[in-house]
Amino acid sequence: MVPSKAEHLKNVAERARAIMEKENVEALVASSCENFYYLSGHPSTFMYTLRMNEVALAVMFRDPSRRTVIIMNEFEAAGVPADLPECELRTYPTWVDVDDPLGLRGGNYEGRRPVNHQVQEMFGLLGQVLAEHGIGGGRVAVELNSMRYPAVNALREAVPGLEFTEAGAILTELRALKTPWEIAQLRKSCEYAEIGIAETIKGIRAGSSAAEIADAFRLALLTHADGSSSRFHMISVGAHFAPAHIFDTRPGQPGDLIKFDVGVDVAGYGSDIARTFVLGTPSDMVKRIYSALRAGHDRLLELIEPGLPMKRAFDEVMPLIRRSGLPNYNRGHLGHSAGLSLAAEEAPFLSPSEETVFRPGMVICLETPYYGYGVGSIMIEDMVLVTDNGCERLNKLSRDLISL
Amino acid sequence: MVPSKAEHLKNVAERARAIMEKENVEALVASSCENFYYLSGHPSTFMYTLRMNEVALAVMFRDPSRRTVIIMNEFEAAGVPADLPECELRTYPTWVDVDDPLGLRGGNYEGRRPVNHQVQEMFGLLGQVLAEHGIGGGRVAVELNSMRYPAVNALREAVPGLEFTEAGAILTELRALKTPWEIAQLRKSCEYAEIGIAETIKGIRAGSSAAEIADAFRLALLTHADGSSSRFHMISVGAHFAPAHIFDTRPGQPGDLIKFDVGVDVAGYGSDIARTFVLGTPSDMVKRIYSALRAGHDRLLELIEPGLPMKRAFDEVMPLIRRSGLPNYNRGHLGHSAGLSLAAEEAPFLSPSEETVFRPGMVICLETPYYGYGVGSIMIEDMVLVTDNGCERLNKLSRDLISL
Repeated sequence: MVPSKAEHLKNVAERARAIMEKENVEALVASSCENFYYLSGHPSTFMYTLRMNEVALAVMFRDPSRRTVIIMNEFEAAGVPADLPECELRTYPTWVDVDDPLGLRGGNYEGRRPVNHQVQEMFGLLGQVLAEHGIGGGRVAVELNSMRYPAVNALREAVPGLEFTEAGAILTELRALKTPWEIAQLRKSCEYAEIGIAETIKGIRAGSSAAEIADAFRLALLTHADGSSSRFHMISVGAHFAPAHIFDTRPGQPGDLIKFDVGVDVAGYGSDIARTFVLGTPSDMVKRIYSALRAGHDRLLELIEPGLPMKRAFDEVMPLIRRSGLPNYNRGHLGHSAGLSLAAEEAPFLSPSEETVFRPGMVICLETPYYGYGVGSIMIEDMVLVTDNGCERLNKLSRDLISL
Repeated sequence: MVPSKAEHLKNVAERARAIMEKENVEALVASSCENFYYLSGHPSTFMYTLRMNEVALAVMFRDPSRRTVIIMNEFEAAGVPADLPECELRTYPTWVDVDDPLGLRGGNYEGRRPVNHQVQEMFGLLGQVLAEHGIGGGRVAVELNSMRYPAVNALREAVPGLEFTEAGAILTELRALKTPWEIAQLRKSCEYAEIGIAETIKGIRAGSSAAEIADAFRLALLTHADGSSSRFHMISVGAHFAPAHIFDTRPGQPGDLIKFDVGVDVAGYGSDIARTFVLGTPSDMVKRIYSALRAGHDRLLELIEPGLPMKRAFDEVMPLIRRSGLPNYNRGHLGHSAGLSLAAEEAPFLSPSEETVFRPGMVICLETPYYGYGVGSIMIEDMVLVTDNGCERLNKLSRDLISL
């Protein structure tokens, strides 16, 4: 059976309320791109595409008899489906007018519209909504650490009497466990990323540049993976390992490494996987490095199981890689949770300080990236689902260093 | 002659220093995605693609004998070209390791790497750089209003003795006037956007959905416009005018409006143009609305000239549209500057409060968008270059409502 998005949203709300209970929080307010979508079920184009900050709010209440309130400008709000479960829509006017020439909604806004987005109006509406729900002096969790500086000041001015706490830890805890619907999106996202890589490598030869390979990857997604979009494609050729916004047009040479570190968007969820290829025959140094990383990666796949603290994975695998031929290997983490984050990596991390344990339903990226001056980039990255007794790889491409 | 990027950066630095002189600012610090690129000449992938905030700084000094300092993590910094003019690179360690197995740079970082990006290290380096340049108690302009709340606190902690002022107005003034190199990118960006629209409409017919049209637009750019990428493509079919992150798959019906509001990236610069089509014959209401908007749009094209305050354009055209058949027309602005902003619109705006005058070298989007419940979206948007005696349209598509 295909998992339903409505069930997903219900599951998120139930778990959110349990955490709110534990943390003594009356309401949870999402204002960032990913978290607004997570709590409301509706992605904001102003946030996702135009990268605007603090343009909509999703307010979830601890009291399960109260529906989540979406606070949004009228223009974007016109796209919120009428059947969005458990949500109530409240709008505020922005610079864009919406006309009602057929009298479908009853009356146009006739006030003077602002020149651009004003957070004051939005936070004013938040104050009203909280007051209507009787949250006067209670604790409200908001994303203080993700908001821009003037937005936090505007929030405090608009809703002066309330005690705000940081919502980051609550949202991290919630997002770390995926619902069946989320797992289905991430499966597809991994599948599409692998289709993209598999199609792209068919055309790579000595002389191919990172720019050509990046274009081929985007084209492969459009034509072979259901028209999907890349979230990121860090493709490097040869020694030029640094991430590039404008891709390198230098032709690849025999012996050059070709690295794909890519993610594909499916319904707002993104994979993060990596594979490395070589034009012709790899050097002995590359073989040695690859084999050390591979030993670490394979060990990560073996050791993950429910109940294991994430730091234990780091503590065991980092020395293994160093012993296996890369004595200087160094890195802040060897993997991370993934899903909604547009930055690909999100907490919890497989890092020396992470006490969180692996739990069934987590989707984790395992990675042992290497970047070397004069060498380039070597990466193996898999996305796995933590299961009841270990983990399942969501992607299937060979973990070998393959010659093209 | 093709304008050079080095000349562009020199031009930006000269004008920045003139404003810093006028505002009595010792150093100008860019921390946002677009402004970091603007001052340094190098786009950060962490910012552009992974949407990370405050991960690199560009520090420009009023003293022209001092080079701009780029503060960046080592991983991204490896991609900064060695010949970036007038820049000096300073790096700090992040969670990604960069190895030096061939001894090309001299020594690996052996300290413990953080789990993820830490602003503290970056701002600490900023404090050092400012101190080395003798800026002890002087005024330093930073992007306070674009930074996240905890970043501002970390900045104040890391550099306690300094007086910070808001850099927003300085950067807006600078960016509003385009250099020849920037105008060349924007010309190409308009050309590509129009190629994308022209190619896409060839395949549109009754039954086409917004999702299909959006995919066709992306494919047209990849295959007919030099592999370029869309920055945004707000494509609507029929009455569903709200911007969509996940596109609508409902098939278009005879009489439906098809609206393209799109921007294409060229070297970090983006067009913002719009055109409207109709499947078959438009209704009388659509004809009436289109003709009112068109009257306003054509008047905007006529009246723009150097020296005219932007608010005058709004004040003249808004009542004209209302008199021409849309008595309820309302909106915060009728156009905006454009170029670097990923949100497409940037200040100054053609709004009732804008005192800024049109100047040769500005690139402005003129728009008269209409959104109506039960009707859909109708838009004409042109990108123009302000010239010595008027303006030049950078895009060429017909301004008529065209039937498909």
